Amino acid sequence: MAVDTRVGQTIKHHDEEYKVIGTRPIRHDGLEKVTGEARYGSDINLPGQLHGKVLRSPHAHARIVSIDTSRAEALDGVRAVITSAAFPDPGDKLTGGGEAPGLPLKFKSANMLARGKVHYHGHAIAAVAAANPHVAAEALKLIDVEYEVLDPVLEVWDAMKSDAPVIIEDLYTARADGTTAEEPSNVAAEMLYEVGDVDAGFAEADLVVDREFTFGVVHQGYIETHNATAHWLKDGHLHVWCSSQGAFTIRQELADLLDHPITKIHVVPMEIGGGFGGKTTAYLEPLAALLSRQTGHPIKMAMDRADVLKATGPTPGGYVRVKLGVTNDGMITAGYANLAFDAGGYPGSVVGAGCRCVFAPYNMPNAKVEGFDVVVNKPKTHAYRAPGATHAEFASETVVDEICRTLDIDPVEFRLKNSAKEGDWQLAMPPYPRIGHIECMEAARDSAQWQTPLETAPGKKRGRGIASGFWFNIGFTSSVTAKLNSDGSVTLLEGSTDIGGTRTSIAMQFAETLGISVEDVDPIVADTDSVGQTDVTGGSRVTFATGLAAHNAANDMKDQIVEGLADLWDVAADSISHADGTFSANGKSATVGEAAGLLEEEGVFPIGKNTVTPTREGGAFAVHIADVEVDEETGKVEVLRYTAVQDAGVAIYPPYVEGQMQGGVVQGVGWALNEEYVYDDDGHLLNASLLDYRMPTALDVPNIETIIVEVPNPGHPYGVRGVGEVPIVPPPAAMANAIHDATGVRMSHLPMSPARVQAALAAEA
Amino acid sequence: MAVDTRVGQTIKHHDEEYKVIGTRPIRHDGLEKVTGEARYGSDINLPGQLHGKVLRSPHAHARIVSIDTSRAEALDGVRAVITSAAFPDPGDKLTGGGEAPGLPLKFKSANMLARGKVHYHGHAIAAVAAANPHVAAEALKLIDVEYEVLDPVLEVWDAMKSDAPVIIEDLYTARADGTTAEEPSNVAAEMLYEVGDVDAGFAEADLVVDREFTFGVVHQGYIETHNATAHWLKDGHLHVWCSSQGAFTIRQELADLLDHPITKIHVVPMEIGGGFGGKTTAYLEPLAALLSRQTGHPIKMAMDRADVLKATGPTPGGYVRVKLGVTNDGMITAGYANLAFDAGGYPGSVVGAGCRCVFAPYNMPNAKVEGFDVVVNKPKTHAYRAPGATHAEFASETVVDEICRTLDIDPVEFRLKNSAKEGDWQLAMPPYPRIGHIECMEAARDSAQWQTPLETAPGKKRGRGIASGFWFNIGFTSSVTAKLNSDGSVTLLEGSTDIGGTRTSIAMQFAETLGISVEDVDPIVADTDSVGQTDVTGGSRVTFATGLAAHNAANDMKDQIVEGLADLWDVAADSISHADGTFSANGKSATVGEAAGLLEEEGVFPIGKNTVTPTREGGAFAVHIADVEVDEETGKVEVLRYTAVQDAGVAIYPPYVEGQMQGGVVQGVGWALNEEYVYDDDGHLLNASLLDYRMPTALDVPNIETIIVEVPNPGHPYGVRGVGEVPIVPPPAAMANAIHDATGVRMSHLPMSPARVQAALAAEA
Repeated sequence: MAVDTRVGQTIKHHDEEYKVIGTRPIRHDGLEKVTGEARYGSDINLPGQLHGKVLRSPHAHARIVSIDTSRAEALDGVRAVITSAAFPDPGDKLTGGGEAPGLPLKFKSANMLARGKVHYHGHAIAAVAAANPHVAAEALKLIDVEYEVLDPVLEVWDAMKSDAPVIIEDLYTARADGTTAEEPSNVAAEMLYEVGDVDAGFAEADLVVDREFTFGVVHQGYIETHNATAHWLKDGHLHVWCSSQGAFTIRQELADLLDHPITKIHVVPMEIGGGFGGKTTAYLEPLAALLSRQTGHPIKMAMDRADVLKATGPTPGGYVRVKLGVTNDGMITAGYANLAFDAGGYPGSVVGAGCRCVFAPYNMPNAKVEGFDVVVNKPKTHAYRAPGATHAEFASETVVDEICRTLDIDPVEFRLKNSAKEGDWQLAMPPYPRIGHIECMEAARDSAQWQTPLETAPGKKRGRGIASGFWFNIGFTSSVTAKLNSDGSVTLLEGSTDIGGTRTSIAMQFAETLGISVEDVDPIVADTDSVGQTDVTGGSRVTFATGLAAHNAANDMKDQIVEGLADLWDVAADSISHADGTFSANGKSATVGEAAGLLEEEGVFPIGKNTVTPTREGGAFAVHIADVEVDEETGKVEVLRYTAVQDAGVAIYPPYVEGQMQGGVVQGVGWALNEEYVYDDDGHLLNASLLDYRMPTALDVPNIETIIVEVPNPGHPYGVRGVGEVPIVPPPAAMANAIHDATGVRMSHLPMSPARVQAALAAEA
Repeated sequence: MAVDTRVGQTIKHHDEEYKVIGTRPIRHDGLEKVTGEARYGSDINLPGQLHGKVLRSPHAHARIVSIDTSRAEALDGVRAVITSAAFPDPGDKLTGGGEAPGLPLKFKSANMLARGKVHYHGHAIAAVAAANPHVAAEALKLIDVEYEVLDPVLEVWDAMKSDAPVIIEDLYTARADGTTAEEPSNVAAEMLYEVGDVDAGFAEADLVVDREFTFGVVHQGYIETHNATAHWLKDGHLHVWCSSQGAFTIRQELADLLDHPITKIHVVPMEIGGGFGGKTTAYLEPLAALLSRQTGHPIKMAMDRADVLKATGPTPGGYVRVKLGVTNDGMITAGYANLAFDAGGYPGSVVGAGCRCVFAPYNMPNAKVEGFDVVVNKPKTHAYRAPGATHAEFASETVVDEICRTLDIDPVEFRLKNSAKEGDWQLAMPPYPRIGHIECMEAARDSAQWQTPLETAPGKKRGRGIASGFWFNIGFTSSVTAKLNSDGSVTLLEGSTDIGGTRTSIAMQFAETLGISVEDVDPIVADTDSVGQTDVTGGSRVTFATGLAAHNAANDMKDQIVEGLADLWDVAADSISHADGTFSANGKSATVGEAAGLLEEEGVFPIGKNTVTPTREGGAFAVHIADVEVDEETGKVEVLRYTAVQDAGVAIYPPYVEGQMQGGVVQGVGWALNEEYVYDDDGHLLNASLLDYRMPTALDVPNIETIIVEVPNPGHPYGVRGVGEVPIVPPPAAMANAIHDATGVRMSHLPMSPARVQAALAAEA
């Protein structure tokens, strides 16, 4: 079958016809990026700038006995050396924003520069500012740190043992019932979600499958390393240029960590070279700021790849147990899941999100989900694309596949029968609005790949797997301000970091609403001074929430144009109609461009604006099909064919939706087959380079076929659902199910690396 | 008398009491500027940046026979060489904005790079981009230009002769009656303003004084030389960083000159090191843009001081004749004035503004004013602080002084008797609203200096002079957008270049209206994307017009806070009162800061905005008193004491008003006594350096005593009048009248340099 590799299929479940939405214009940031003109953090150079470097712990767990910076300070060219003492005392404050608001600020502060103890290999200990990066690097070697090395705890199952070394000596478990544990432990928090009566449900089951799964730590693997340039002016204004998923988030973190008024902090978002959840928090920004305050000079800092892998926020390794009960005719009666995720060196993993997603594709009468946030001697973990969902659904979708095999039920039919739909419960959320899991499953069933029997080859172990995935999406706050220019074009400021092409998807919604072409909108990611409050780019929220702000801002602008024309034409505002970008009343009419010119002459300059905090996110489902071939000798798994089906609500900019789907699959395949932090017993990270931490290349993945399903989200005027995250969820399960189909072996650890597959094959044989 | 050199006197003619307005907070930009942290144009450095230089004409008037750039292009390190051919054909288009909208664009374009002819010594001919400034400078020497040198015409009285060489061969006088001359000439435009019957008025006069005055060219003498960095991206976006009096003005000029859509042009205003009217137009920006488009690299350019003096826009030299008729009891019966100003190499001088100001302080029943805009072989002239008014009122205030001497009437009494007041006619404008000339004159009369007899010294020629001045001020369009932060502080974006401290004067009006402290407002001069349309900083308009936009934006924010609190408190919005920054209703109350926090929790983030084009400018008067001592031997004039009185309407930020008054006086003293372009007969500028073009230093001026008079402008909610320009108007006349008082000699040329004073004394003797 000939597949158009550029344009995938779209299956609409609505009758809306749009002029701009759903088209494929040239993306606004495209040319700048392919020509190298786009400005990233490393392109900033300020007069008098100094360079900063960070000293990192060689130990995974150790007490800092002393730090002597005097030799470093004496080195020619060194201008400042700071340790954790440079940070204000966080006291009992909670973080005011960022990815995980409401956690004790002292943990975040200690993660910036270790306070008394190091919690993981690579933990920042001190930072140096010097005339150039070479002197700064040299100075690091002259900082004398005396450590008392402690036993590390690396895995959640070890860390949760009652006799495990306690990493944070004053950490008391926040229990699900609201109480706090009396003895310190590594379990920062417990969660519990229950629906129905799970024991009764399992009692009704004809078949119960109960399996355990474990996970290595994986990194988001963005191309651009973290960087920050800061200039702390003598009047207290702090200017920061950095690459992050949210300038406002970084501003809030700086305000918290530095105890500095938010109005004095100006964060300029530079272009971002990938984030995937890993650039939602500050690392270098506060250090650069403190070094700047101390030296009076701008400070530029950048991580190298080893820094990124060792000391930023990978997504957790951990443990998931899933137990499902079904009747013989394939109806789920009960589900139980238990998730324990690495928080890393400080509390706060994404386990809660995993809990919410583990059973999300299915409507089951009884469910219980327990979650554990566990501190271990690894870097403080963070989000990675649908954070927690991939782990959770790898487990549940593997168990579903096993059930289908055992009961000999078609996995598509099983999922259709048990599918969640509008009105069904969601964990910790209102019941589902209109959702598209069934439509995605049907589209997968009808897809070219599913309808084409797997091509067998003599002596080759080939198999096919299918899996569902869910990500709930988030709303948060977004702002747009749009200026009408005299030629009818619009300069649109938005506060959301554009990671996945959202400048265009936001501009398209504005253009659709105002009735102009998207080429007439110039979308700009503005700094924290120039646009209203806008939360982090994450949770697949930007095209949904910032797009809604754009739609509202376009309506605001439309109202102002109508008001201006009403004065000019001497008619009542409500007698002016607007269609296809033309305003008409009383036989007079003006396009947006004509109106702009007319109003300018009257001194009227419409500026539409909106700040919105939408709550009706909608949630997104995906169904993926993988065909694989397993090399029995080496355990290497090759992906032969791959189809990704996803409910986008309405795909504002289909090429980006397809790009997100394909990108998510590639990352999911990497996670499924290769990617993993490798530690020695002392907790040293052994593969802190992209040579050893192996991400898939173009040679490792086939063309990924995409099918966009459009079941509009009723919570958005254009039906948008977030699309950026859910495509990473199904791949590991689809691959595991395909591997089982090919070999009869069930894999229970991610990644399913050649060595592990080979070992599993050997054990089975 | 002990004079407080920091705080002057304020005389209020109103009963308003303000909390913020009229106080003396620390200016928002102060610390950044005194510590060198403020970022100017030269602080911009972009990756891959090249450096541009400009080749300038060695001749004042010449035909360009040929330009051969091949040797320059071949030089190692040279990346591009452009001539006027790089500009799009301006055709018959008119300029769309900037200082003088509506002039033929071809003139502006040819002033950027000479087209066929050079019109003045220093006229730009070609521009080079190279790897560094040194190579660029070297390359200029390799550009071979063949000239046919023509006779220059340097003074208006020569240029207006019927047999003068015509500089622009297709320039036909635009006559005052709307017709166009049939023969080309150097007179670009004629103006005529008439009130009453001037012949009848002179017939009624007992005394008619008719005098001629001439003027050298003077430069604004700002510290920072012109600079521009431009990056023309491959998708057509043009980013420009520069120091100008208006980022939007530069954007419009670039759009005009480069025939490029305004939406694609982004101008970032850097801090400005002085402008005074001379940075209202582009010079380097279009060249940097074209060189960037050609090379694909960012281009940085900066002038040296010689470039600035030779080839930017000084203010005109020229000719003014003033004839006044008075009765023996000192009532003016008629006035006639004739002003001919240097346009410089292309049409468009400030003569029209001079016409409007020449008789402005007086109400006379009959007046006629003629103006001539004359092209000469000197740089295209531009505004300089109250442009044209200084020339005009030097002439009229000298004639008034002569009348007072002749009729033996006290010059204060004469001016009070004849003073313009509310309801009197203004040339080419509606009648005066409430104005403060009488109040200023009374304050001058009552001042310490006027009340203290001039101290005589044996053998010393000492004298005292007084003079009035008027500047009408302009409105234009201004925008402010202000965000309420969660702590109750406000980030305020405004579009006006801050030359004279207007960040603070705008923030103070916002703070007064919202009821917060000015320290809680963070005023930011935003780029052309981030704030609404804002015209040039000029015409003393910013504190007036942008301040009004700030007041309106504060009210907009107030309305949004009230609306949010009404929802929160469940009360009607109109039941909420606002006083002293506290909102109250039904026994509940919240300060702005408290309200910000409450609203944030509800997802309400108020953003106040306003774009305004005010027309009720008000106009500002000043009265200055100068005591001088004239050295008979050298002709050197020393200023012994100086008092400046000025109607500020209401002084928002008194230290800046005083600073503007003192700064205007210093520039006026420089103009009066020293500053002048010196040309040889071939039109070569001989003093293109600050060593030879002598501006006053701190040693040349005494402490300048200030008296602020507050006669509120009824056209502004806080009564603001523009204050930046009028203080340069009276000094030359006050000095001339003082010189006459000291020596009996009437000076009729500016500057009254030692050589000229000495010659006049010699001629009198």
